[in-house]
Amino acid sequence: MLVGTTHPGNIGAAARALKTMGLARLVLVAPRTFPDPEAEARASGAADVLAEARVVPTLDQALAGTTLAIALSARRRGLSLPELDARAAADLAVTEAQHGEVALVFGTESVGLSNDETLKCQRLAWIPTGASYSSLNLAAAVQVVAYELHMAAGAPPRPGTGFDAASLEEVEAFFAHLERNLVVSGFLDPAQPKRLMERLRRLFGRARLEREEVNILRGILTAWDGFGARKRRSR
Amino acid sequence: MLVGTTHPGNIGAAARALKTMGLARLVLVAPRTFPDPEAEARASGAADVLAEARVVPTLDQALAGTTLAIALSARRRGLSLPELDARAAADLAVTEAQHGEVALVFGTESVGLSNDETLKCQRLAWIPTGASYSSLNLAAAVQVVAYELHMAAGAPPRPGTGFDAASLEEVEAFFAHLERNLVVSGFLDPAQPKRLMERLRRLFGRARLEREEVNILRGILTAWDGFGARKRRSR
Repeated sequence: MLVGTTHPGNIGAAARALKTMGLARLVLVAPRTFPDPEAEARASGAADVLAEARVVPTLDQALAGTTLAIALSARRRGLSLPELDARAAADLAVTEAQHGEVALVFGTESVGLSNDETLKCQRLAWIPTGASYSSLNLAAAVQVVAYELHMAAGAPPRPGTGFDAASLEEVEAFFAHLERNLVVSGFLDPAQPKRLMERLRRLFGRARLEREEVNILRGILTAWDGFGARKRRSR
Repeated sequence: MLVGTTHPGNIGAAARALKTMGLARLVLVAPRTFPDPEAEARASGAADVLAEARVVPTLDQALAGTTLAIALSARRRGLSLPELDARAAADLAVTEAQHGEVALVFGTESVGLSNDETLKCQRLAWIPTGASYSSLNLAAAVQVVAYELHMAAGAPPRPGTGFDAASLEEVEAFFAHLERNLVVSGFLDPAQPKRLMERLRRLFGRARLEREEVNILRGILTAWDGFGARKRRSR
């Protein structure tokens, strides 16, 4: 998934990078210019990957149905998700792909992914670089990650862990419920939210919620909601 | 070493690929167009690598003084040089570089290295690709090989993430608070606890709580406790 890509040439080069590594599914989130002749030129023999790219306006739509999203980031962030280097991230992605849909998410050429975008992912991956200059071209970063995915897929897969990850929609519905509940209980002031929801997203993102856990957490919130409703009636 | 490169943009992108991986020595053998503004544009922050590139008319001159030259090739050849994949080639190159000068040699965009050029090298390396399309862009191939060299050289680990783990006592106090709260809200029946607390311990254990997160969670529980207390007073 390429989010907010500025240069269409990079989209074409990314399509080529995927195809050389036996990958085919490219998702473009709000690309600045697409389709574009420069993208087609740089795609070279991967015109099919480019033609079948899915274009969506938001990252939420792109991530719908995924059970693991890995954000690529050159920068260190204040809110750090668990971090993996590209090789470890590829191993994880290949293992997880046996059970669900996995996304690798790349930000814009200039600033990468925003904090909000990063926090919709459950893992942060970085490409090891030299100390003096760490800015890979976007398509070059896609090439390295695609290469590592291909290398990881070549190794015999590890058996599944039985982890039943919740979908993005289930997790987002939980966060929406939690936020309403925190406002009603008075813990979250919508006028002064600070970074509360961001912190909670980071915590639960790090854990990666299972479907059954989302059900438990929603149940707890509903029990507390009942408290609030009874209290309001009894006023 | 790039031999007979046609597109100056690829030279610039290769310079950038090298610099991101802590490498600096670029040799251009009979480039078609160099220097060129397109090379400078694609080099981005690696203008120094481009400016210091050595330009020579023949591969022999480029290879003078090297003790190991590894030819990169997408195609399998009749020529029986020992073949290595990119990862094994990088390991070999890093080992040999302790004793002598090592060159990685890339051919033209369209046909790669000629047989004569390949036979000036002592090893043949290939980048593993998908079966249906194996044609990496030249700069993308340089990026993958440079990345493997960097990994083989022992990429320095990232500095610590500043993760401020909560102590066992803090985490246990949170679980005790959570359990009391769940009983009061009616979600947890002490006579029929099932495995609720066990499931919640598993979830938060997987995340590993930070100290600040424990504070936030305790704050949320306290806000909900307040609800309960007000409700009981209002009965």
